[in-house]
Amino acid sequence: MGKYDDLAALLLEAIREGGYLQKDDQSIPVGISNRHIHLSQADLETLFGAGYRLTKAKDLSQPGQYACKETLTIAGPKGAIEKVRILGPVRRESQVEILQADCFKLGITAPVKLSGDLPGTPGITLIGPKGSVILGKGLLIAQRHIHMSLEDAKNFGVTDGEQVTIQIDGLRGGTYSNVVIRANNTSVLEFHIDTEEANAMHLASTSKIKLAN
Amino acid sequence: MGKYDDLAALLLEAIREGGYLQKDDQSIPVGISNRHIHLSQADLETLFGAGYRLTKAKDLSQPGQYACKETLTIAGPKGAIEKVRILGPVRRESQVEILQADCFKLGITAPVKLSGDLPGTPGITLIGPKGSVILGKGLLIAQRHIHMSLEDAKNFGVTDGEQVTIQIDGLRGGTYSNVVIRANNTSVLEFHIDTEEANAMHLASTSKIKLAN
Repeated sequence: MGKYDDLAALLLEAIREGGYLQKDDQSIPVGISNRHIHLSQADLETLFGAGYRLTKAKDLSQPGQYACKETLTIAGPKGAIEKVRILGPVRRESQVEILQADCFKLGITAPVKLSGDLPGTPGITLIGPKGSVILGKGLLIAQRHIHMSLEDAKNFGVTDGEQVTIQIDGLRGGTYSNVVIRANNTSVLEFHIDTEEANAMHLASTSKIKLAN
Repeated sequence: MGKYDDLAALLLEAIREGGYLQKDDQSIPVGISNRHIHLSQADLETLFGAGYRLTKAKDLSQPGQYACKETLTIAGPKGAIEKVRILGPVRRESQVEILQADCFKLGITAPVKLSGDLPGTPGITLIGPKGSVILGKGLLIAQRHIHMSLEDAKNFGVTDGEQVTIQIDGLRGGTYSNVVIRANNTSVLEFHIDTEEANAMHLASTSKIKLAN
């Protein structure tokens, strides 16, 4: 059996040197977001009542983030969209991330921006069971990004804020440019796109992608 | 003035040799399709009544093709989608081209295929004002393709059926692979994608794209 063990060890070493295992290590899970809302505690209370607390429905991949039981109607000058999911926990400022297709339904042109980059974004109206909020800003289409730990960033040879290109295989494959690296100590490795971006490349939540060379 | 004419001629020659004018010539207009239906005359008559003829609402870019006034409801085991536009003229076989997102609403998994490649596709139910048709096949998500004349194909150095990669610039840019060239004597130059594919890359009907090098 000694010979076979030696052979196995040699094969494994050859595979490692060939970079096959490393390549496999560098695949990135995909997280797909539909339109959703982040609320400040003040706006949450206007919409749902004084002292209201969000109800967690499901944990998301990023630590501490969760989908809530609560939904809202969002409305623009041309139309409204019902049952838009709220994600928790509450944030310092309210923000609504929509799909490109929603701009047409709502009658508002939203810019492609990183989550949290609210200056210069248009507003939108939120309608809840106990009241409405007219946001002066906070409507955006999320720019594609990859969450990762600082350890991941080191492994991939990238830095926080850097923009990379990612490669998607298959009949509906291609590449997405200007994908922003968001690296910090609390994030878990995940490529974040919205449903239109996922569908255009035939990606599912079980898909894995890789950085383009 | 002779000197300026000579200078202008030399500049133009330099620009041409640098490929700038050629590159500009090789931009391709974008045509964006939402979900839509092509009907056979027999199915049209089942849905709208004996002897019915389609009503043209708007000419499309490809010669002889048009959007119709008529719409239908399409239905699967999980749900229905109303007001799906019919495109004319009638075809030999009925066909329904949907978005990836529609598969979820309908509860049917449709394959990515070229228009007209119906063997192996699932069916769907069409509901019209005078009757319904249960299609045994014909549901697909259209594979990205570029219509062009044989003259265009020669200019681009491509052939009918070849698959190319196209390049999209901008913040939401990237590339789409496996884009099929559909070249014949009756087609007009146009890159055809659906609304999800257009939105994912921030393309509008006024956009132009180019083949990747």
